Amino acid sequence: MNAPADPYYVARIRSSFGRQKAMALIGASLTVVEPGHVELALPYRDDLTQQKGFIHGGIIGMIADTACGYAAFSLMPADCSLVTVEYKINILAPARGSLVARGEVLRPGRTLTVTRGEVYSEDGKHVASMQQTLMMLAGTPDTPE
Amino acid sequence: MNAPADPYYVARIRSSFGRQKAMALIGASLTVVEPGHVELALPYRDDLTQQKGFIHGGIIGMIADTACGYAAFSLMPADCSLVTVEYKINILAPARGSLVARGEVLRPGRTLTVTRGEVYSEDGKHVASMQQTLMMLAGTPDTPE
Amino acid sequence: MNAPADPYYVARIRSSFGRQKAMALIGASLTVVEPGHVELALPYRDDLTQQKGFIHGGIIGMIADTACGYAAFSLMPADCSLVTVEYKINILAPARGSLVARGEVLRPGRTLTVTRGEVYSEDGKHVASMQQTLMMLAGTPDTPE
Amino acid sequence: MNAPADPYYVARIRSSFGRQKAMALIGASLTVVEPGHVELALPYRDDLTQQKGFIHGGIIGMIADTACGYAAFSLMPADCSLVTVEYKINILAPARGSLVARGEVLRPGRTLTVTRGEVYSEDGKHVASMQQTLMMLAGTPDTPE
Repeated sequence: MNAPADPYYVARIRSSFGRQKAMALIGASLTVVEPGHVELALPYRDDLTQQKGFIHGGIIGMIADTACGYAAFSLMPADCSLVTVEYKINILAPARGSLVARGEVLRPGRTLTVTRGEVYSEDGKHVASMQQTLMMLAGTPDTPE
Repeated sequence: MNAPADPYYVARIRSSFGRQKAMALIGASLTVVEPGHVELALPYRDDLTQQKGFIHGGIIGMIADTACGYAAFSLMPADCSLVTVEYKINILAPARGSLVARGEVLRPGRTLTVTRGEVYSEDGKHVASMQQTLMMLAGTPDTPE
Repeated sequence: MNAPADPYYVARIRSSFGRQKAMALIGASLTVVEPGHVELALPYRDDLTQQKGFIHGGIIGMIADTACGYAAFSLMPADCSLVTVEYKINILAPARGSLVARGEVLRPGRTLTVTRGEVYSEDGKHVASMQQTLMMLAGTPDTPE
Repeated sequence: MNAPADPYYVARIRSSFGRQKAMALIGASLTVVEPGHVELALPYRDDLTQQKGFIHGGIIGMIADTACGYAAFSLMPADCSLVTVEYKINILAPARGSLVARGEVLRPGRTLTVTRGEVYSEDGKHVASMQQTLMMLAGTPDTPE
């Protein structure tokens, strides 16, 4: 439905994700990169948990935010960067085990893009739902200044 | 204004925070614990950044979520646990350097509590604002089952 | 997928909607009532507009909130009432003409239910997207005290 | 703290509010217009209620959305218009009687402005809290096309 503006969007997103040191810290990897649709995998690790032994809600937010952001980025031209304006996430169930986060573009826009994200646990449970707004910064590189 | 239901709330929160392995992973520490008000500090680390070298938005969400959650938890009775129902965060500015997250109870409730959180960078810049909803689980321990 | 707990849920929702004087004020009507899925129609009226002649964003929020709330209510037992805890709405495009609001249950729960809503204009444009949290009040009538 | 870019911002806002037919429909009026701070009053009317006799949550959202929007608009230059990107509202308590909505600018921006809003009932009860994002459309009149 959405055609990517940059034919090299997959390589651009893989390179950008590779520069996200916070994703390396938590052990997340990029598993699906399609136009307007991106998925991440987060293998279970004990050091990602909160006080009750579930995956920390903030970690769930991190992977949903990132999947949604790259779903939006997949439709952007090559010479831009993207910032998260805001997101809202509902934690639907406590998360144990490995997780998958899926981001989808709900409405692409010239300046603002709206996305939705879902997080599932490996047993198929729906763990979280996000709605997010991003802003494109035209002519701004997606690299450190 | 808000009196804690549990006189030992500071020890209870410090112990709970100490069990949050995800907070140890990112290097966050608890700096202020008062009734309805909790602050965290997050020293800058290179491995907390995203592709442009700023602190990852999801990390900002993590510390705001945690500060707000413990602000709510400070007013709760001893024999309960608390889950994040949802939160919404606006990223107001790109974050460099060390961060402080402040959580405040907006409206305490028997079942649901609503909080607000702010994140500031060490140069005083307002980095993010959160509005969050939590649910108390009465008679449920705040420890792994 | 979701079975209604009350076989008379359609009559219960039509009666409840009929008591919503604010829906009569704006001219909204209930068009679809299914388990976990409710739709409203809002015919265009000049007195629903904002300063630029578009339908007021708050009116869009009203019909999305109501459609989502009744989607949740369709799965509830007969002797309860439901309150909106919170909602988040993105306005995706300015709205002209008549509108349709669709609410769907994302995750039904004993205490909390999470829903999503979409608003479309008569020309098929996607106008708004909502994510909402509701709380069931067991044993509380859905009528004035 | 925030200086208005347009010295005639009060007249501009009063004129814009006067064109909001949806505000006339529900009987809301503009009571305070200051730089970055706007308040509305909504006298109680039976036709603003939901099925239990409380003020409809969508009506509460409407006045909070409008107060926040004009708080942002007060800091904008004369030749622009403003659109609501999204908002999130927590309903803190059921609302009876007349209401006041207060909007405040949290962070003014060239493109995006973030605001917060509070709604109180006449007995001083805190009824709702909003966090909202708006986008300025430069060189676009705040009037019907």
